[in-house]
Amino acid sequence: MLIIMKTDAIESQIDTVVQRVEDMGLRAHLSKGEERTIIGAIGDGRPVMKDQFLYMPGVDRIVPITRPFKLASREFSPQDSVFPLDGVDIGGQGIVIIAGPCAVENRAQLLETAHAVKEAGAHALRGGAYKPRTSPYSFQGLGEEGLQILAEARAETGLPVITEVMTPEQVPLVCQYADVMQIGARNMQNYSLLHSVGESQHPALLKRGMMATIEELLMSAEYILSHGNRRVMLCERGIRTFENTTRNTTDINAIPVLKSMTHLPVILDPSHATGNWEFVTAIARAAIAAGADGLIVEVHPSPELALSDGGQSLKPERFVEMIAQVSAIAQAIGRCVAPSKAGLSTGCVHV
Amino acid sequence: MLIIMKTDAIESQIDTVVQRVEDMGLRAHLSKGEERTIIGAIGDGRPVMKDQFLYMPGVDRIVPITRPFKLASREFSPQDSVFPLDGVDIGGQGIVIIAGPCAVENRAQLLETAHAVKEAGAHALRGGAYKPRTSPYSFQGLGEEGLQILAEARAETGLPVITEVMTPEQVPLVCQYADVMQIGARNMQNYSLLHSVGESQHPALLKRGMMATIEELLMSAEYILSHGNRRVMLCERGIRTFENTTRNTTDINAIPVLKSMTHLPVILDPSHATGNWEFVTAIARAAIAAGADGLIVEVHPSPELALSDGGQSLKPERFVEMIAQVSAIAQAIGRCVAPSKAGLSTGCVHV
Amino acid sequence: MLIIMKTDAIESQIDTVVQRVEDMGLRAHLSKGEERTIIGAIGDGRPVMKDQFLYMPGVDRIVPITRPFKLASREFSPQDSVFPLDGVDIGGQGIVIIAGPCAVENRAQLLETAHAVKEAGAHALRGGAYKPRTSPYSFQGLGEEGLQILAEARAETGLPVITEVMTPEQVPLVCQYADVMQIGARNMQNYSLLHSVGESQHPALLKRGMMATIEELLMSAEYILSHGNRRVMLCERGIRTFENTTRNTTDINAIPVLKSMTHLPVILDPSHATGNWEFVTAIARAAIAAGADGLIVEVHPSPELALSDGGQSLKPERFVEMIAQVSAIAQAIGRCVAPSKAGLSTGCVHV
Amino acid sequence: MLIIMKTDAIESQIDTVVQRVEDMGLRAHLSKGEERTIIGAIGDGRPVMKDQFLYMPGVDRIVPITRPFKLASREFSPQDSVFPLDGVDIGGQGIVIIAGPCAVENRAQLLETAHAVKEAGAHALRGGAYKPRTSPYSFQGLGEEGLQILAEARAETGLPVITEVMTPEQVPLVCQYADVMQIGARNMQNYSLLHSVGESQHPALLKRGMMATIEELLMSAEYILSHGNRRVMLCERGIRTFENTTRNTTDINAIPVLKSMTHLPVILDPSHATGNWEFVTAIARAAIAAGADGLIVEVHPSPELALSDGGQSLKPERFVEMIAQVSAIAQAIGRCVAPSKAGLSTGCVHV
Repeated sequence: MLIIMKTDAIESQIDTVVQRVEDMGLRAHLSKGEERTIIGAIGDGRPVMKDQFLYMPGVDRIVPITRPFKLASREFSPQDSVFPLDGVDIGGQGIVIIAGPCAVENRAQLLETAHAVKEAGAHALRGGAYKPRTSPYSFQGLGEEGLQILAEARAETGLPVITEVMTPEQVPLVCQYADVMQIGARNMQNYSLLHSVGESQHPALLKRGMMATIEELLMSAEYILSHGNRRVMLCERGIRTFENTTRNTTDINAIPVLKSMTHLPVILDPSHATGNWEFVTAIARAAIAAGADGLIVEVHPSPELALSDGGQSLKPERFVEMIAQVSAIAQAIGRCVAPSKAGLSTGCVHV
Repeated sequence: MLIIMKTDAIESQIDTVVQRVEDMGLRAHLSKGEERTIIGAIGDGRPVMKDQFLYMPGVDRIVPITRPFKLASREFSPQDSVFPLDGVDIGGQGIVIIAGPCAVENRAQLLETAHAVKEAGAHALRGGAYKPRTSPYSFQGLGEEGLQILAEARAETGLPVITEVMTPEQVPLVCQYADVMQIGARNMQNYSLLHSVGESQHPALLKRGMMATIEELLMSAEYILSHGNRRVMLCERGIRTFENTTRNTTDINAIPVLKSMTHLPVILDPSHATGNWEFVTAIARAAIAAGADGLIVEVHPSPELALSDGGQSLKPERFVEMIAQVSAIAQAIGRCVAPSKAGLSTGCVHV
Repeated sequence: MLIIMKTDAIESQIDTVVQRVEDMGLRAHLSKGEERTIIGAIGDGRPVMKDQFLYMPGVDRIVPITRPFKLASREFSPQDSVFPLDGVDIGGQGIVIIAGPCAVENRAQLLETAHAVKEAGAHALRGGAYKPRTSPYSFQGLGEEGLQILAEARAETGLPVITEVMTPEQVPLVCQYADVMQIGARNMQNYSLLHSVGESQHPALLKRGMMATIEELLMSAEYILSHGNRRVMLCERGIRTFENTTRNTTDINAIPVLKSMTHLPVILDPSHATGNWEFVTAIARAAIAAGADGLIVEVHPSPELALSDGGQSLKPERFVEMIAQVSAIAQAIGRCVAPSKAGLSTGCVHV
Repeated sequence: MLIIMKTDAIESQIDTVVQRVEDMGLRAHLSKGEERTIIGAIGDGRPVMKDQFLYMPGVDRIVPITRPFKLASREFSPQDSVFPLDGVDIGGQGIVIIAGPCAVENRAQLLETAHAVKEAGAHALRGGAYKPRTSPYSFQGLGEEGLQILAEARAETGLPVITEVMTPEQVPLVCQYADVMQIGARNMQNYSLLHSVGESQHPALLKRGMMATIEELLMSAEYILSHGNRRVMLCERGIRTFENTTRNTTDINAIPVLKSMTHLPVILDPSHATGNWEFVTAIARAAIAAGADGLIVEVHPSPELALSDGGQSLKPERFVEMIAQVSAIAQAIGRCVAPSKAGLSTGCVHV
């Protein structure tokens, strides 16, 4: 941490700051320029509370140097983290595709979708049993019944299941039914939930909040990692900006930036990131081209009848076409779509 | 809801949309312009799922007409909602001031602050026992011990207490100790929590998420109201924008806009909205001038020793000055600072 | 400037950076922490190109220390800058109010408005002769004819005139007709225009771009100041954010922040900042409460017939009411509305 | 345009609005719902001033239906616009790559870069002679001398030249030296400049402003097109958001969205969109995968010595690698990198 003094700070103010730095068990290092003095507070890498200096007389501002996350950083773990999900490696050479409806609406809808996405080559099934909805009057999901339907779809298709968890109490139940717990964008900073997911030791997909910085996403991952749960994948799903032609703005920069900052797998959700099925395939291609490790995509057999997010869902036939295009992009950058349960050739030889 | 068809939509596509509108129990109303057809879906005011039309062939876009919230709207309840808090009216003629430290750090710190803010003329005491922190390594609050200290401060000073609740399970415990439950910005769309707070029937302060629109804030209030809990006050606390000279951007427009859209009391948190004590008083004045019903302000006896948010906390002597200035502004617009337990004259005669 | 080295930077990389710092005529100051080395580049206060270091091996990032503007800073000129405008001090104790229509539409409209705002107590008349419009098909202003009408209004009412200038070539003509040149939000970073306005030595009102930071606004002011033109006032007019209930988001924080960073007068435009006449008066009050030195407000005798921005224009009778309310706020903070040509008592004694 | 009346609008208010609609030569179409009345104003497709209704008693809000741009729309011109640039088709099957330094610094630097980018397979040379800089104290470009150096580089390499124009007066001079005029992000809404570029009939590259919506970009293109100049290409270069890990946020959604809304060629600038050379190649790949027609990339032989934007410039050897990767992506989606003057095989057969 660097403490930048004001240009008119007097000697006694500088001394007081230095004293406090040393009182906190840190080493103070002075640098006197023509205009002002800068005090470096050198420690053992643990974060220091900058607010404790911000208020002191003569202090202009504080510049943090050490990144506030550790376990999530690539410096801590230079190798890519890879974890297996029912035979498929998340974060490995092969691109992983998770697909399914926004919400589990009923047994027939989910099973039809599950079979369709499996045949198309998906590696996992998504579907919400608990739905965070802006309106108290909207469909809130089937709850445990939805989880049971998901389990049935897994039994039928063999696809691992991923579903959202909304409260700490739901964690044990969701772990029982699902292979991966999803933490939704609105809950990215629900620290009680992150804590519980961390303690569960169950694989987690952490979605970036629509107004969260990349650093905050990594801090939320750190919450989970700090409880010993290392099976975390991150998901870019679009951020909120002034542009509203699309539902969200896909932060495509976040893909290579995250891959440089963290060892965790990074996937992209082109459905929420665009909010419009017409643009989903183009953004899915862009995500893989930029270096994403996978995709999570909304697929619905009859989007026009969906109880939520129909407008951004692909029909199964369009999803087939999306996988074909994504596969071509994957090969162009020396990767491939991971081999799927459907046994479809994805046109690439696994190394 | 209006369904705007594409300019090249054909007759059969229009017919299919009209059919679906009627299948949903709504009345369809066609308007054919030179360029395109617009279909109005006229119902009983209940929200309709626009996604169900977005995907239909020939549809360009959907324009919602009915606001998605009802109980929170001024149309539903034209009179200002006023609710008493230990003798003070929230949302009435008098400005209400809530003050205290960001976090309850220990007994001495809280009691000292409680006495100081009472003497300065505050109407309620704030202080966090459960703290949502970006970093898992930061001070997370004292938990129930913090609640006990708050209760002790109430017993000593007579000030009602307001504190944050982070999970549905904490609701009963927090209700037991606190007069008002605060829902923090990061939990504004934690729907499970909103549900529990709604069912508790306990007064609530709902902070706007840093990424939430005014409409989303009202939708979250609607969650609480729809469970029959009508004692809800809203709090603007700054939004996230590209400007980062200040911690957040105070959305001062939100004050008159909210007052026109809803009957609920609206207060402002100048501490988070600026992130810097130097600007807190100016923004507190602006909030009251713009029509806010109250303020929630961070006050700490030794901000430079605070375990969180010290940089945005006022010292007690500055808080005294802030109340004096806010009182002058209140009078300039024909209001006053509500009479306080300290019995201080605020320079205004209550009408 | 501080050069933060990567944690794995090697000795030779550090040496190379130090060498370059010294080659640039600066002094290098090393600070070796547990984790990494920081190199301070200490100079004479002139800005250094940080990009020249960003690319060097081993460099993590650059932290600028010296602010990039000088003449605009309060450190350079601790006293408030005050400049007279036809008998009224801009930036002094008295609040200055500039009012008039968005655009000069015709002689009758402007003269009627000019008389109305004068009688209400305005100190200057605004009106656009050159209009920057998003659409090439919208009314683009009357051009020089509009300037002539403005001059006529000044002759009739005695009010000084302020109008927008859009290109460097228009500068001499606009100077000839207007007392103050306005640089619009979309031209805040039109550096050729800033250069010409700087050289003109004519008073200027510089509006903040809707997506410009406070620092960028001050850098644009620096362009004008650096040509020796010191009569510059700054104008907050709302920024673009994700919130779109209002046309823009008033950055009320910018008022006290600018007053702390610069000696230049700061005014606010509540018409553009809200985009809705219903909220103009509340935001005008807030601006003065927050410390603004003045207001620029759109007033139109028949807003529903205005060729542009009618929805955010006040009718003359509402403008009268706005001044009364602003005057009460001004007194509450120990200021007043400056005495006007209309000779109206504004209820305050000039100190 | 739809005029949404308030729920409590009375009959006479509705009548007055209808009257005005008809007075404007439009047809009024009433739709009376349970809650409120909606009035459609049906015309000949010309934009109507919505502000003229916003102020009327009983009016709640206005919903525009007709898009405000026409010549730029895909509805107006369903086929992709393609225009030749010295033998290469912009907007055709082949991807076009424009490369060069941010600024022309001197003869040696530009010629070295020009040869390097030509050999790597670029189709055009970029380089700024007039530089918009945030600081008045930064290098402002060589002006006409820079244009002469660009012309010399064209004579030597045969590459067409693209350079920025900042004011209307510079247009004739820049047309004389350059093959394509660039309108920079800060000037996207400099309407006087757009007007002059439109009248010049010279090819133009229009960069999206960092704060401009997609619709505003198309409105600015409309300014140029409306003067009969049809050779316009659009450039996404990143927008400003709350995320500041990268210099800007690449709005990758804008690529497929623009391709669906307009017939004009769309390219992307990964250098400004990321601000960091490490991420340029990944975002270049993503842009092509998303459907962009080309790229404009900063290349500098010695980025660490660049007078501007060194940190985001690729070294020539990295640029060679970028083209190879982009070429593989282009093939994966059935396109190719256009044949270049360097005669390099780009691994694709032109159809």
